[in-house]
Amino acid sequence: MSISKIKLTFPDNSLHEFDAGTTGLLVAESIGKRLAADAVAVKFNGQVQDISRPIHTDGTFSVITPKSRDGKLDADALYCMRHTAEHIMTEAICRLWPETKLVYGPPVDDGFYGDIDLDTKISIDDFSKIEAEMAKIVAENRPMTRYEMSRDEGFKKIEAEGNPYKLENAKSAKGDVLSFYATGANVGTDFEDLCMGPHVPSTGRIGAFKLTAVAGAYFRGDEKNKQLQRIYGTAFPSKKDMDEHFARIEEAKKRDHRVIGKQMGLFTMNPLVGQGLVLWMPKGGILRTELQNLMQGQLTKRGYSPVFTPHIGNVALYKISGHFPYYKDSQYPTIKSDIDPNEEYLLKPMNCPHHCMIYAAEQRSYRDLPIRLAEFGTVYRYEQSGELNGMTRVRGLTQDDAHLFCTAEQVEAEVVSTVELVKTIFGALGLNDYRVDVSLREPGSDKYTGDPKVWDKAEETLIRVAKTMNLPHTVVQGGAAFYGPKLDFMVKDCIGREWQLGTVQLDYNLPERFKLEYIGQDNNRHRPVMIHRAPFGSFERFTGILIEHFAGAFPLWLSPVQVRVANISEQSQEAANHAVAALHAEGIRVEGDISASGNIKQRVKESEEAKVPYLLVIGDREAAAGTVAVRGRGRKDLGVMPLSEFIAKAKTEIAARA
Amino acid sequence: MSISKIKLTFPDNSLHEFDAGTTGLLVAESIGKRLAADAVAVKFNGQVQDISRPIHTDGTFSVITPKSRDGKLDADALYCMRHTAEHIMTEAICRLWPETKLVYGPPVDDGFYGDIDLDTKISIDDFSKIEAEMAKIVAENRPMTRYEMSRDEGFKKIEAEGNPYKLENAKSAKGDVLSFYATGANVGTDFEDLCMGPHVPSTGRIGAFKLTAVAGAYFRGDEKNKQLQRIYGTAFPSKKDMDEHFARIEEAKKRDHRVIGKQMGLFTMNPLVGQGLVLWMPKGGILRTELQNLMQGQLTKRGYSPVFTPHIGNVALYKISGHFPYYKDSQYPTIKSDIDPNEEYLLKPMNCPHHCMIYAAEQRSYRDLPIRLAEFGTVYRYEQSGELNGMTRVRGLTQDDAHLFCTAEQVEAEVVSTVELVKTIFGALGLNDYRVDVSLREPGSDKYTGDPKVWDKAEETLIRVAKTMNLPHTVVQGGAAFYGPKLDFMVKDCIGREWQLGTVQLDYNLPERFKLEYIGQDNNRHRPVMIHRAPFGSFERFTGILIEHFAGAFPLWLSPVQVRVANISEQSQEAANHAVAALHAEGIRVEGDISASGNIKQRVKESEEAKVPYLLVIGDREAAAGTVAVRGRGRKDLGVMPLSEFIAKAKTEIAARA
Repeated sequence: MSISKIKLTFPDNSLHEFDAGTTGLLVAESIGKRLAADAVAVKFNGQVQDISRPIHTDGTFSVITPKSRDGKLDADALYCMRHTAEHIMTEAICRLWPETKLVYGPPVDDGFYGDIDLDTKISIDDFSKIEAEMAKIVAENRPMTRYEMSRDEGFKKIEAEGNPYKLENAKSAKGDVLSFYATGANVGTDFEDLCMGPHVPSTGRIGAFKLTAVAGAYFRGDEKNKQLQRIYGTAFPSKKDMDEHFARIEEAKKRDHRVIGKQMGLFTMNPLVGQGLVLWMPKGGILRTELQNLMQGQLTKRGYSPVFTPHIGNVALYKISGHFPYYKDSQYPTIKSDIDPNEEYLLKPMNCPHHCMIYAAEQRSYRDLPIRLAEFGTVYRYEQSGELNGMTRVRGLTQDDAHLFCTAEQVEAEVVSTVELVKTIFGALGLNDYRVDVSLREPGSDKYTGDPKVWDKAEETLIRVAKTMNLPHTVVQGGAAFYGPKLDFMVKDCIGREWQLGTVQLDYNLPERFKLEYIGQDNNRHRPVMIHRAPFGSFERFTGILIEHFAGAFPLWLSPVQVRVANISEQSQEAANHAVAALHAEGIRVEGDISASGNIKQRVKESEEAKVPYLLVIGDREAAAGTVAVRGRGRKDLGVMPLSEFIAKAKTEIAARA
Repeated sequence: MSISKIKLTFPDNSLHEFDAGTTGLLVAESIGKRLAADAVAVKFNGQVQDISRPIHTDGTFSVITPKSRDGKLDADALYCMRHTAEHIMTEAICRLWPETKLVYGPPVDDGFYGDIDLDTKISIDDFSKIEAEMAKIVAENRPMTRYEMSRDEGFKKIEAEGNPYKLENAKSAKGDVLSFYATGANVGTDFEDLCMGPHVPSTGRIGAFKLTAVAGAYFRGDEKNKQLQRIYGTAFPSKKDMDEHFARIEEAKKRDHRVIGKQMGLFTMNPLVGQGLVLWMPKGGILRTELQNLMQGQLTKRGYSPVFTPHIGNVALYKISGHFPYYKDSQYPTIKSDIDPNEEYLLKPMNCPHHCMIYAAEQRSYRDLPIRLAEFGTVYRYEQSGELNGMTRVRGLTQDDAHLFCTAEQVEAEVVSTVELVKTIFGALGLNDYRVDVSLREPGSDKYTGDPKVWDKAEETLIRVAKTMNLPHTVVQGGAAFYGPKLDFMVKDCIGREWQLGTVQLDYNLPERFKLEYIGQDNNRHRPVMIHRAPFGSFERFTGILIEHFAGAFPLWLSPVQVRVANISEQSQEAANHAVAALHAEGIRVEGDISASGNIKQRVKESEEAKVPYLLVIGDREAAAGTVAVRGRGRKDLGVMPLSEFIAKAKTEIAARA
C-alpha cells in the first residue's frame, strides 16, 4: 500500500507535498529546525491545533510561534499557552486540595480562569503556594497528550470519577468523540481534564505565569447552582513580556478616563438620566467645545456646510434607509403614539437619513456638487449594558459627522481632502502614530450593493490615495461594508494601545434607497456618490481616548483650566486678583486660588493634581514688580516674568495649538 | 316699593351707586356723553355684554369703546363688531338667496365667518353684491335687539321655521333660556338669529367691513354631514383701520418665514422625519451658527460654563422634577423597554433636570457660586399638529438655555447681568423696541412654592432691576409661575408685531425637588436659588421671527451668503474666480455667479432676489485694474474700488456686527 500524499499551502502561497498523516511538528521541521523548536501550535485551514496532531488532507498551513518576526506577541500562541497554564493551575490546586472538583477553565482576554468546586476558601494568600506547585509542573516539562473516546465510553469514564460538572460539560459537548488532555505521557495516571484543546506541546513552554484574582462564580452562570470559586491568572512567553503587561495595566489604570474624568470634573453619568448617557460637566464641556472649534475651523476652510437635524425621525424614514427593523436590537425602542399608528419615531441611530432629506429638499445640479453637509449630530444606540464603558462605549454619542454628495469623478479629490482633514486633526492632537486599513470587497462575493465597475474604480481610488499620500496602510480584502469600500484610521496612543478612530466610507446604497439625484452636464438625472466620514468618530469616545492618551495633562489650548493663580501672602492677594481678571479679559481660562492665608506648597500640589498647565505664583516681590513666578505642569520652574510677557507667551502657545 | 341700589366698581377702583336694573348705556352716560356715544359694549364682572342689558347686582364695570385712549384697537370691541357684521352678512345673503338656511357664525381671530346651507354656489365674484346689500343694512343703522325664550318655547319656534341646524344648535345650547338677536326693533318681522351675543348697539356702528374668502365646511366639522359654504369676512371701526390691517397682512405675507425660508434655502421639513421637526439646511445652518457664536461670545465673557446633556432622560428624573406625568399631554410618548420596566425614557421637554444633575454631581461650596451652566439644548414637545407653524411653533426646539445656581444674595447681580446679556443680544440684532413684563405672585394666593419672604425679596429685586436699568416695563400681578417670579421680554418687529422672546425666571422649586445644596460660609447646608434664562427662547422661533423682521435681508454678519461675484465677459471670468478665492480665504462667505456668457441684468436681479448684501461685478476694466464694481442690496451703486479695499470694508462691517 502506497502512502497517500497531501498538499499544504504555506503563508507565502507556496505549495508543499507531505505524507498524509504528517504532524504540524514534522512540517515545521521540514521548514527549519529553529522554527520547529519555536513552534507552540499550528494553524491548519484557519484552525489553531496542537503541533502533534496528524494532518490528513490538503489545506493552508502556518506555524504559530510565541512572537512574530517583528517581535509582537502572537495572539494564538498566547491563547494556547494560557490554556495549558490553566491545566497546570488546576493540577496544582488538586495536588494541594485533593478533594477539588474541576468545573471549567478557558483562556480569556489577557489570561485565563479556572472554576473549581472546593469547600476550602481560596484567598490571594494561597496564590504563592499554588504558584510554587505550578512552577514545579512547568519545570517537569511534561508533554500535553491528547486522546479521544466515543461519547458513551467517555460518559462512563467521567461518571466513574464522580464529577457531576464534568459529566454535564461532556454531555453538552458537540462532536462524535470526547477529547481529553493528559499533562504527561502516561495517560490514565497523569493529571488530565476533559478538554477540546489546543495546547502548547509541553508544560515547559510556559515562560512566565501569575495568578491575579479569585472571585465567586456559578456553574453556567446560574445563581441557583452551588457557588464555585473562580481563580484568574495569566501567562506569557517570558517574564519580561509579563512584566511589561502588568506595567501597561498599571499605566492604563492611572490613565483610566473614568477616574480622571471624575477627578477633573469632566463628565458624569447618573442612573436617573440613564446608563451610557454622558453629562458633560463644565470642564468637559470646554474640552468638547475646543475640539468642536478645531474641527469647525477645518470644516469652514474646506467648504463644508453646517446643518442641524432633529434627534428623532419617523420609522418610515429608517425603513427606507434600511436601519429599521434590521438594526432593531441595537436601537432604543420606538416612540409610539397611542392614537396615530403612523406617528412612530425612532431616536436617530445615524445622521445619514436626515442629511439625505436635506439633499433631496432641492433640485441639485452637477454645478452644485460636491455638497458637504456637516453636523455635530447626536445619535442613540442601545448598547448592551454589560458593554458600556465610561465615555468609550456609550448609548448617546455625538459624531463629528459629515456626508459628502459628489459625482463619481469627484470621489478622489474628496477622499484626499478628507484624509488631509483627518491628518490635520490628528496632528493637532499629537496623534501621529497611526495606520490605515483600506477595506475592499471580498473577492468573488455578490453581497455588495452597486455597480462592480464603480466599485473597482473606487477601490483603486482608495488604494491610490493611500499610496500617494504615503499613509502606512494595509489592504483588507473583504473588509468593506456591503454598501461601499472604506478607509479606517487605527491610532496608537502614547502607551501603545491601538484605537479605531476616523473613518471614510463610500456609500452606493443610501443614494439609491433615497433616489437621490442630480442633473448632469448631459441634462440627464444621475445618482450622486455619498461619502460618510467622521475623523473623531464621536466626541465621547474620542475624548475618552484623549483623556487616557494625555492622562488628563492636556496641551494648553485644550486644557479646561489653562492657568491657575496663587498668592503667597495677604499683601499679594490684590495683585493675584488683578492677574486673574487680566488673564480672563485676554480670553485665557483662569482659576484663582487666592486667600488671605494659605500654604503655597499645598497649592502647588493641588495645581499639579488638577493638571493645570501653568501656575502663576505671586508673592510680595512679584506683586510690587507686576511680575509672576511661572511654574509649568510637572513642577517646572519657568522663572519670573512680567504678567504681560506671560500672557503674550500663553496666547502664542494657544494659537499654535501645539 | 323702593328701588334697590347696586354698587359698581370702575376701572380706577372708585365705587358708584346705581338703581338696580340700570343698563350699561345709562352707566356710561353718567360718566360722560362722549364715552356713552363711543361705547359699543360694556364689561361687567369680567364678561363682555350688550350696552342695553340691565345690570342687577354689584360688580366691576367698564365701558368698551372701539379704541383705547392710546389709539389701540380694543379686542373686545372688535369681537362684538365682527359678531354683528356676521349677522349683517347672513341677512344680506338671505335677501339675495331667500332659500338660504343659516347654520352657525362666530367672530374669529381677525374677523368672522358664517356657515350657510345653500345649493347655489357662492363665489368671490358674488362678494361685491353681498357687500352692497350689507352696506344698505349698515346704512339703515338698525338696533340689535336681544330677546329670550324658555328652551321649550324656543325649540317650538325654531322647529316651525324648519331649520334643522338651528334646532340642533338650540338643543346643545346651555342655560335655562334661549336668546335671539333681531337686527331691528321689530322682533318677529325683522331678520333674526339664535345667538348668545354680545353685539354692538346697532348696525351703523360697523365702520368698515369686507368679505375675504369662501370655502367648504361641514356641520360640526363632521364630513358625514352635508357640505356647507363658509364665508369669511372682517370688520373694523374705520376704513383706515381696515386698510392698515390688510396692508399688514400683505406685508406679513411678503415676510412669511416659511416662504422666505424655502426661497433662501434656510430650512425644510419632511413628513418622513416628522411634523414640526426642522431640518436646518446649509444656509439656515450658517444663520444659526452665527447666532450661536454671537451668544457664545457673551457667555464666555460673562462666566458661563458650557455643558452638553443627552436628549432623553429616565422618566424617574421627570417624576422628581415634576415634568412627568403632569405635562404628559404636551410630550412625546415615552420610550419603553419591553424587558425592563425601569428602562422608560422621555425625550427631554426641558434642560433643567439634566443641569440639576450636573450641579448635584459634585459637592458645592458658597465659594463655587454662582455656577452658570449653559447649553444650546434641544428639547422636544408634542404640540398639537394644528398649532404647528413653520419655525415659530415646532416640536423640536433648541433653546439658548442656561441655569444659574446662586445664593439669595447673588440673585440681583445675576439678574442684572442676564438683562444686560439680553439687551446686548437684542441690540446686536437691531431689536430695540421692546418692553418687559415683570410677573409677580397673585396677591393673597397660596399656590406658590417657596418662602414668602424670599419671594418678597425676589419680587422687589426684579422691580428694582427693571427700574434702575430703565427697562420699559409693566408689573403683572399674578403673572408669576408657581415656582418663581420672572421677567419676560416682549419685542416688536419692524412691522409692529409683538413677540414674547427672552425670559428670566427665578425658581425655588427644582432646587427643593432635587435637594440641591451648597455649603455656606457658616458651614451649614443651604439651597441655592436657580435662575432659568433664554434670551432667544429657541433658535427655531427666534430665527423664524428674524426672517420676518428682516424679510430675509439679514445684516452682513448674519447673511448666509455675504458676497456674490459676477463677471461680465469671458475675459473677466478669471478675475472673478480669483476674487471668489480671495474672499473665501479671508473668511467671507462668497458665492460665484460666473460663466463664460451671461446676462448681467439677470444676475443683478437674482442677487437681489437672493437678498445677498453685496454683489461684486467684474468687467474687463475691473479685471485689468484689480477692482470690483460694488452693488449693495436694494440696487445701491457703491462705486468701483480695489478688491482689497472692499475686503477690508466688509471685514470691518462684519466685525462691528451692526
